[in-house]
Amino acid sequence: MVTVKAWCRVDLAGGTLDIWPLGLFHPQARTVNVAVDVAVTVELQPLPGGYRVRQGESVVEAGSAGELARQPDAALLGVAAAALDLPPFAAALASESPRGGGLGGSSAILIAFLAAAEVAFDRPRLPPDRQVALAHDLEARLMGLPTGIQDHYPAILGGALEIRPQPGGERVRRLAVDLDALGESLVVVYSGQSHFSAGNNWQIVRRRLEAEPEVTAHFEGIAAAAAELAPALEAGDLPRVGELMSREWSHRRLLAEGISTPVLEELLRAAAEAGAWGGKACGAGGGGCVAILTPPDRRTAVAAALERAGGRVLRARPVGTGLEIASD
Amino acid sequence: MVTVKAWCRVDLAGGTLDIWPLGLFHPQARTVNVAVDVAVTVELQPLPGGYRVRQGESVVEAGSAGELARQPDAALLGVAAAALDLPPFAAALASESPRGGGLGGSSAILIAFLAAAEVAFDRPRLPPDRQVALAHDLEARLMGLPTGIQDHYPAILGGALEIRPQPGGERVRRLAVDLDALGESLVVVYSGQSHFSAGNNWQIVRRRLEAEPEVTAHFEGIAAAAAELAPALEAGDLPRVGELMSREWSHRRLLAEGISTPVLEELLRAAAEAGAWGGKACGAGGGGCVAILTPPDRRTAVAAALERAGGRVLRARPVGTGLEIASD
Repeated sequence: MVTVKAWCRVDLAGGTLDIWPLGLFHPQARTVNVAVDVAVTVELQPLPGGYRVRQGESVVEAGSAGELARQPDAALLGVAAAALDLPPFAAALASESPRGGGLGGSSAILIAFLAAAEVAFDRPRLPPDRQVALAHDLEARLMGLPTGIQDHYPAILGGALEIRPQPGGERVRRLAVDLDALGESLVVVYSGQSHFSAGNNWQIVRRRLEAEPEVTAHFEGIAAAAAELAPALEAGDLPRVGELMSREWSHRRLLAEGISTPVLEELLRAAAEAGAWGGKACGAGGGGCVAILTPPDRRTAVAAALERAGGRVLRARPVGTGLEIASD
Repeated sequence: MVTVKAWCRVDLAGGTLDIWPLGLFHPQARTVNVAVDVAVTVELQPLPGGYRVRQGESVVEAGSAGELARQPDAALLGVAAAALDLPPFAAALASESPRGGGLGGSSAILIAFLAAAEVAFDRPRLPPDRQVALAHDLEARLMGLPTGIQDHYPAILGGALEIRPQPGGERVRRLAVDLDALGESLVVVYSGQSHFSAGNNWQIVRRRLEAEPEVTAHFEGIAAAAAELAPALEAGDLPRVGELMSREWSHRRLLAEGISTPVLEELLRAAAEAGAWGGKACGAGGGGCVAILTPPDRRTAVAAALERAGGRVLRARPVGTGLEIASD
């Protein structure tokens, strides 16, 4: 049995620009995010005779990888198993992220699964950039849509990262950040609304590719905020980071209908009233989680205000370590 | 002075599926093409004080790479120079391909330029897959649209190639083909209509990403034809290759309005009447060149029929060698 644990992430600024080729159009484009201790776990072992995927109450069984790929609850693993020609296995999946939470949980599960499969089936270990390319292509194949790369790097590497789309391939830089100090100020709250990122994202990608002026201008604003956020984060200027998250959100919420929702705006308003520096919805928005930065001495008050506004505050501390692999 | 010569290509089947992520949606997807001796040439030398790009009558001068990128006649080189932070240079470009010919000439020029810049400015030499990724990203940045990878590999490698999009990155295979025999049967004719591939391609990509059933079915047909064509080409079964090119075109022409034009159809009809095995438009269609396969003993008659139908037959013999670099 191989067990792999990987982290979800909170994106601080610049998401969606990680979907090719959008980031190439904005020279300042980058995605800044941080791994948090919202874990996903994959347990994997060979199982002669058939494929079985268990997650909570759901158990999916299939005679082939292709059949597995046609089961909604196990489709991503099935697509991966078919593409990699993996022999039968039993996999148990667990995620601490709320479903549709916007924390990149499903990509983290895929990354953990791919790493587990390398060990369980004695396949060559891919370096991070090839593993990310593989995972992101498998997701594109499953969804039939362009997908991004920002969820996979934190799952593999941990820590605070800057992911810059560049001609010829992304440059990934680990930011020198005091993660404990960031953790004192970071509050992640689940809105109770599940989201579906692919549909939202495609509408936005399409409008940017068609060069709609308003969408293009908002992406320029998102890229600029992300470019300012990375050095502010490294300088430990968290009030400024919070302000830039809010500025990023002021553009992002206008990219398409449905990214902003009344529940998300109410959470952001409640946090601001309780003294937070700023915040934004995680991932594609439209529900999911909200990330808030607050002065440490306002943290308890902000969390209470978020709960009163209907949110559920998650344990989500930044973590600097990457993927954990254990086998027995 | 560094001089680099690269080849244009004739695509036999499966184009457009090389535009990410389309090929991932069709498991049989591949692009089969062949380098032909329609050459492009780039001469490059450092030029202290400013950038100068000459192509035929056109001379563009600029004080910076960014300024060069804003000049339509030198934009792609300017985008490349800006992204790679290249110092000032003089470049002379030449292409034997008709403008808008659908033979991948502008990508071949970019590949030749990137190789020349590596030598002229003592930059590390990228392996083919990284060079292709770089070139294709630069083109996406310039056009603001997704772009493909099928034009770049023949320019670098020469020969007949099969380019398969796979999760994690394309697999490129050199096909074992008797290029002389293929040359006896291949006729490439210019329609006299210039085309613009990016606009055509984007409409098609968009419709496939939105899973329009008709477009999806035609891509499935294109992928299937390409999958059959590669082994037929390796077996030297050129009548079958011609038939598969025609079958590919029967799907491709229906992907969008404007891919098929009366002039293109007239050329294909004239060739068939003169005894050709089959054929299709090159690249994105909408004009440009048509590639025909014909029995060698019908070659003269087919060429004459194509000229009578208004086409201009090009010298375009398959070549097995790749990029040529000379410096003095």
